[in-house]
Amino acid sequence: MAAELTTSQLSEKHRTTLDQALDVIRTRAYWSPHPEHPKAYGENGSLSAAEGLAAFQALQGGRFELDQPGTDGWTGAEVSPYGPRLGIEYPHADLDVLLPAMRAGMGAWREAGPENRALVCLEILSRISARTHEFAHAVMHTSGQAFMMAFQAGGPHAQDRGLEAVAYAYAEQTRTPGAADWSKPQGKRDPLNLGKTFTAVPRGIALVIGCNTFPTWNGYPGLFASLATGNPVLVKPHPRAVLPLALTVRVAREVLGEAGFDPNLVALAAEAPGEGIAKTLATRPEIRIIDYTGSTSFGEWLEANARQAQVYTEKAGVNTVVIDSTDDYKGMLSNLAFSLSLYSGQMCTTPQNLLIPRDGIMTDAGAKSYDEVVADLAGAVGGLLGDDARANALLGALVNPDVKARLEAAAGLGEVALASREIANPDFPDAVVRTPVVVKLDGAKPDAEAAYMSECFGPVSFAVAVDSTADGLELLRRTVREKGAMTVGAYTTSQVTEAAIEEVCLEESAQLSLNLTGGVYVNQTAAFSDFHGSGGNPAANAALCDAAFVANRFRVVEVRRQA
Amino acid sequence: MAAELTTSQLSEKHRTTLDQALDVIRTRAYWSPHPEHPKAYGENGSLSAAEGLAAFQALQGGRFELDQPGTDGWTGAEVSPYGPRLGIEYPHADLDVLLPAMRAGMGAWREAGPENRALVCLEILSRISARTHEFAHAVMHTSGQAFMMAFQAGGPHAQDRGLEAVAYAYAEQTRTPGAADWSKPQGKRDPLNLGKTFTAVPRGIALVIGCNTFPTWNGYPGLFASLATGNPVLVKPHPRAVLPLALTVRVAREVLGEAGFDPNLVALAAEAPGEGIAKTLATRPEIRIIDYTGSTSFGEWLEANARQAQVYTEKAGVNTVVIDSTDDYKGMLSNLAFSLSLYSGQMCTTPQNLLIPRDGIMTDAGAKSYDEVVADLAGAVGGLLGDDARANALLGALVNPDVKARLEAAAGLGEVALASREIANPDFPDAVVRTPVVVKLDGAKPDAEAAYMSECFGPVSFAVAVDSTADGLELLRRTVREKGAMTVGAYTTSQVTEAAIEEVCLEESAQLSLNLTGGVYVNQTAAFSDFHGSGGNPAANAALCDAAFVANRFRVVEVRRQA
Repeated sequence: MAAELTTSQLSEKHRTTLDQALDVIRTRAYWSPHPEHPKAYGENGSLSAAEGLAAFQALQGGRFELDQPGTDGWTGAEVSPYGPRLGIEYPHADLDVLLPAMRAGMGAWREAGPENRALVCLEILSRISARTHEFAHAVMHTSGQAFMMAFQAGGPHAQDRGLEAVAYAYAEQTRTPGAADWSKPQGKRDPLNLGKTFTAVPRGIALVIGCNTFPTWNGYPGLFASLATGNPVLVKPHPRAVLPLALTVRVAREVLGEAGFDPNLVALAAEAPGEGIAKTLATRPEIRIIDYTGSTSFGEWLEANARQAQVYTEKAGVNTVVIDSTDDYKGMLSNLAFSLSLYSGQMCTTPQNLLIPRDGIMTDAGAKSYDEVVADLAGAVGGLLGDDARANALLGALVNPDVKARLEAAAGLGEVALASREIANPDFPDAVVRTPVVVKLDGAKPDAEAAYMSECFGPVSFAVAVDSTADGLELLRRTVREKGAMTVGAYTTSQVTEAAIEEVCLEESAQLSLNLTGGVYVNQTAAFSDFHGSGGNPAANAALCDAAFVANRFRVVEVRRQA
Repeated sequence: MAAELTTSQLSEKHRTTLDQALDVIRTRAYWSPHPEHPKAYGENGSLSAAEGLAAFQALQGGRFELDQPGTDGWTGAEVSPYGPRLGIEYPHADLDVLLPAMRAGMGAWREAGPENRALVCLEILSRISARTHEFAHAVMHTSGQAFMMAFQAGGPHAQDRGLEAVAYAYAEQTRTPGAADWSKPQGKRDPLNLGKTFTAVPRGIALVIGCNTFPTWNGYPGLFASLATGNPVLVKPHPRAVLPLALTVRVAREVLGEAGFDPNLVALAAEAPGEGIAKTLATRPEIRIIDYTGSTSFGEWLEANARQAQVYTEKAGVNTVVIDSTDDYKGMLSNLAFSLSLYSGQMCTTPQNLLIPRDGIMTDAGAKSYDEVVADLAGAVGGLLGDDARANALLGALVNPDVKARLEAAAGLGEVALASREIANPDFPDAVVRTPVVVKLDGAKPDAEAAYMSECFGPVSFAVAVDSTADGLELLRRTVREKGAMTVGAYTTSQVTEAAIEEVCLEESAQLSLNLTGGVYVNQTAAFSDFHGSGGNPAANAALCDAAFVANRFRVVEVRRQA
């Protein structure tokens, strides 16, 4: 078929961006081609704030047409954590029709080669970027994130992570040349000569199992890594967060078709309520790659049972902050308060256990007892969230009733240093908005351990009294080794202590943020520079994004011929 | 401790070689720093032929001291496939002592960084290279390879594969810089500044499970990939092929110690007869990486059960050669005859099924019927092996009684086109030397399928009559998909047929050799240029050697600090 989007058009539009991404994943400097500010949109074909909202509203209460093969019904029951029912129905797939249809275009997509695949992926990302305002509402009303976070994390930051994956995929696929001449000397005889070709070939259909809280941010790396390495991608969204990924699938299909490829290389697998399609899909022989973000139990099930596939999981962990000493007490408190509050602590990177020596810490504001540190932190959180408008803008809404139940139960686990507070959202009266609870626990008491050694996903943190910083480091080590961690934070003014903390993180493979007191938070990572997770502790078996995340999504087939 | 081997000495000696290896894994041109000819040794500190033989003889009938911790006894019962008992005893390890001792040096080995680790690995390989004549005898008398093959495949070719793995490991670990400054603009406000460090960290102890037939060639890629990425390596040889890997471990320990590192970073786990230590080792929590070459059943057991580890397996497959047509009939026959005969077909890459259209093929020597092709191939094998001295030099000895039993049973599977012949080895009267059997099978008959769709490891090949080349390609596809393949060969003069064969191999992820009629054989691959296996079909889950083979043996830990 004649392509509306030619290779040269795509190259002219995106090759420079690809080269910049390739450069920056090596330098790890700051870079992003996707503006963070909502006001940066509305020109050059991108939707303005009003247009984005209108587009989102127009989707509600209707069928989300995708024109993909094997649709045997319609399903969808998304309810915004802010209250409204979205009322959108998505195609439900007959896998025995859809999966073969997805494989049909694999040959041409493989033949397109790494560069063309990368350029098509960049066009998909570019069109998603132009609709960031629309995606922001879709993410907000499925994840419960506040608008600004939904806009940034669900928009440019997710797009950055997708682009990063494309860059890694391109780099890995082009490490081996397309062809080589090989000539082996044979002394006085003629050399042995071979002509060789090397082709990156896909593994098969890749499955992306999306999560409720960050459908795009956590979904894009796997989606784009698999697509850019030649694999068709089937997207199975979380049933409460379908829309952001359905929009993504629609854009991808549109671009693939315009570029002359089979749109069925990307498809959606929405599920009926209670259908539990993920297990069925994950063990289909056609599925050769799986990317999953979610609970530890299902992640471990996938690792154990989806043996026919490469399985990349981001599961749960218990994140720790070690508080030893600081030369910026106020900065530390406000930085931590923000980290605990952002999106009601519903990030896989949010600190849970704050380890504080029971004899207190040294600070630039003098010695502070354990009780003082906890009280001051509680004060900082209270201050940060004292204004309801600001609280709503930071907290968003609780994503589901389980989080609310855990939050309520947490108050019974120990002495409450800061009680959770209910906040009304004037725009969305049904939104469940709560400030974080901070609970004091004694690290030396065995009955406290059951609490702090389990992930308590949501706005719950534990101020754990430890015998000393050294004792805290042992607890940190044990926590990372047994429970995993997406992030570790630490505050210390001692070089010796800092080195000891680093050593624990190097030995247990945990990503460490030291002495953050300003506008960077332990729970945030930047694509192209920061790794999200390490892939070396139980919280995740892969990092976003490194060579290992992409290098096994394709294989290289060599054909050698006598020359 | 003071290092006898300083970093600058190692760099002076090996950095150029490392750079050459890094260059050639990108260009895939011919290269090797390890001479293939036995006469190239004996100077510059390397053992001559006589010295190598003497060194091997001196090892027999004694204890192989390694001075590694936790030795709780001595074990060893190697009997050369050529007859003699080696009579060497190796330390048997108390894992509860040895494994912790192996971890003790991990911190310093990690801190050494990718370049120093690579240089130490190159020194190990260099010292192994200097003892190639000694290794040749060790490989010959454990694998049953003939001397020249044991010399080349067990010596320089194995060392090449080890060096290749070191180069990939270095390249992967240095893709991320050691440190980066990150500065994110904030409009009119001050930028956010972070200082970041990135450290490649090991996963834990790596286990290499060696095989009987190619202890060094198949053992070195995993061993050096793991060691170069910072992991201690425990080597569990096949109980019938301990010596080549024990020598390797001894050299590695010696070099590590001289370079100021803990020799216990590399250790040996020899097993008592019938002990079956591999399962115990493979599921120890300390073991985080496993490299395995051997049977499909145990490889699949490892993949299913060693869940705490990254598992790299090379299992069994069924290798096919499609014979459609040729413009060099004589060259094709002699090339195939050599491939079937080399090391009595005991290579994972040896062709098993030769698919020949039942209506015959076109050649430069005229049309040849199926029967003629098979008879001519039988004649070519017979001619190649007609002289007993030459036959002994090509065939080596059968590695174990199972191979002999399979060979004898194969004659009952169909019409024997070429009977196996017993050959006397004048130097080793107890050696079991047999020429290959070629059995005719009809691909259309269901009872034949049980034979040709199973791996029959050893000097057995099946001349399978197929309805047409197209029919053969469908059988090829099914064989690769269901049974896996390390190699595929094909002969055709038709561009259309060639494209169709390539397409099958690209779709099923199999490495293809086309129209080999000269001195390169389908069962041989050259490090730095050819991939061994694809990692994309059931024969192996990894390829030797690519980025995916090394990128997940380490993780990158980031430490970020407010700047």
